[in-house]
Amino acid sequence: MTASEFDLIQRYFSDLGSRRDDVLLGVGDDAALLQPMAGEALALCVDTLVGGVHFPQDAPAETVGHKALAVNLSDLAAMGARPAWATLSLTIPAADEDWIAAFARGFGNLARYHGMALVGGDITRGSLSISVQAAGFVPRGRALTRRGARPGDAICVSGTLGDAALGLQLWQHGRGDLDEETRWLAERLHRPTPRVSLGLALRGCATAAVDVSDGLAQDLGHVLRASGVGAQLDVDRLPVSTAAARYATEDERSRHSLSGGDDYELCFTVVRSCLHKLDAIASRVGVQITRVGTIQPGAGLDLVHADRSPARLEVPGYTHFGDRGDRG
Amino acid sequence: MTASEFDLIQRYFSDLGSRRDDVLLGVGDDAALLQPMAGEALALCVDTLVGGVHFPQDAPAETVGHKALAVNLSDLAAMGARPAWATLSLTIPAADEDWIAAFARGFGNLARYHGMALVGGDITRGSLSISVQAAGFVPRGRALTRRGARPGDAICVSGTLGDAALGLQLWQHGRGDLDEETRWLAERLHRPTPRVSLGLALRGCATAAVDVSDGLAQDLGHVLRASGVGAQLDVDRLPVSTAAARYATEDERSRHSLSGGDDYELCFTVVRSCLHKLDAIASRVGVQITRVGTIQPGAGLDLVHADRSPARLEVPGYTHFGDRGDRG
Repeated sequence: MTASEFDLIQRYFSDLGSRRDDVLLGVGDDAALLQPMAGEALALCVDTLVGGVHFPQDAPAETVGHKALAVNLSDLAAMGARPAWATLSLTIPAADEDWIAAFARGFGNLARYHGMALVGGDITRGSLSISVQAAGFVPRGRALTRRGARPGDAICVSGTLGDAALGLQLWQHGRGDLDEETRWLAERLHRPTPRVSLGLALRGCATAAVDVSDGLAQDLGHVLRASGVGAQLDVDRLPVSTAAARYATEDERSRHSLSGGDDYELCFTVVRSCLHKLDAIASRVGVQITRVGTIQPGAGLDLVHADRSPARLEVPGYTHFGDRGDRG
Repeated sequence: MTASEFDLIQRYFSDLGSRRDDVLLGVGDDAALLQPMAGEALALCVDTLVGGVHFPQDAPAETVGHKALAVNLSDLAAMGARPAWATLSLTIPAADEDWIAAFARGFGNLARYHGMALVGGDITRGSLSISVQAAGFVPRGRALTRRGARPGDAICVSGTLGDAALGLQLWQHGRGDLDEETRWLAERLHRPTPRVSLGLALRGCATAAVDVSDGLAQDLGHVLRASGVGAQLDVDRLPVSTAAARYATEDERSRHSLSGGDDYELCFTVVRSCLHKLDAIASRVGVQITRVGTIQPGAGLDLVHADRSPARLEVPGYTHFGDRGDRG
């Protein structure tokens, strides 16, 4: 570790997030020493954001710090795991202290909100890129995976879909700051809200879950393949925000809600006998839940309208490698 | 996760390393699910290698895969931790399958050697950069940290120092393939050997440890600051390989062994009453151990010759941020 880098880490990253009793030794040694929760499974994920690919190079550093952690919290949420620790690899072109301070603020605020401690990391020189690893806990056998969806299960999504894609479109056209609604859409893009509480509430209720990072069609597709099932999706039921209803054409709304990335909502399946619990869960965690389809035997995704007629929508296929990269 | 990226991960990374019973759910979901070892502390570290900074852009992919994991194993070794799991964030300019296959081979071979499983990761598009997180276990209270060095402790290092710096110098001048010795030096640079067995053997024996990634002076400096002590280092005792003795000038040898990076040897301190154990440890793990100095009260590093006269060597100061970045 170089001296000034050592100083940067000491100054901005040595006490980031919450203090936790299970951190035996935090930032500043060759590795952190942690005390895992007895009897629980450790959920471990990693996600990298590359400047110019996953966020604009000139995005405010505070939002980059927020988002780098948020996308990983979203993965933990999709497992029903309670966040505990994070590590951070920050690659930056130069040691711009203002940028680093703002980045650390965005990262730290979200970490504290979720009771999470930053326990280790490194800073290297290079093209802007942030790799975060998040660890959390879930009781053995109660994790939400992609494998448990069964025919007849209802398919639900949290929040609204397509906001981030619309926010990006407006932002790219210099229309991100027109009014409250476009600013809200920009926030949805730059400062996503990981659905951690919802993930915890869905333990024992959802049969499968995934976070919607690459668009509903694609992410639900992962669940279908992992579970060996198909699905019917009612495109007229896909939840769209009032901001999107105002600023997107009908065609854009369909496209964004099916294949727009970066929403970080949860898509999950529940057995029908559990559907009645969802209203209470939605109220408790303060997130709208919408039933959007049904798991069926077979494979693949059938898009239908409310009257069950086939929806002739073009769903952009799986993005080719490199266009966005994995937000899984 | 994009389709072709999904395919790449399935093809090259879904079963990399050893199979372990404590991996409840590996690559392919939103997070891995792992069963930590009861009663032990989890050691967690992360280190990023940036192409063109930490390895040449045209380094063989197999060695890049090896090194990306090795530098993290070296951190676990310095904690006295037994490796268990790794995650991988691979950022590459294009989906070059030959490169990825060779990278995975280098990573996987080293992981298997150490009984480690790759449990998660992502692939993104961008400038070549690899961020690896490694997790291991160490019984509570038996980890080697940087904090325990006390006046009177002997300072020891494993292996030989400065080989990687010399290897880089030769390689940069197109002299990496002259003979067995220059090839060995190139291997020391490109394919470092993490001292995992030594780290395990030093539990209960070493009072502090650090891996030598940025040069002995700098890395020992971290131990001195963390422990609140100083040290006297006998520069005539620094272990130099026969290859370095042949290809480096005396001045280069001194400089490389004190401040050359990338050696990934261990520097550790032991109470004198434990010194007699080191020969047996060195034999058992097959690594040379050399006593190079003594911890003393105060602060800072005194360089001396065998006759205790001050060594007037110029030790390049802490590398400025960005020249190399953290290999801590």
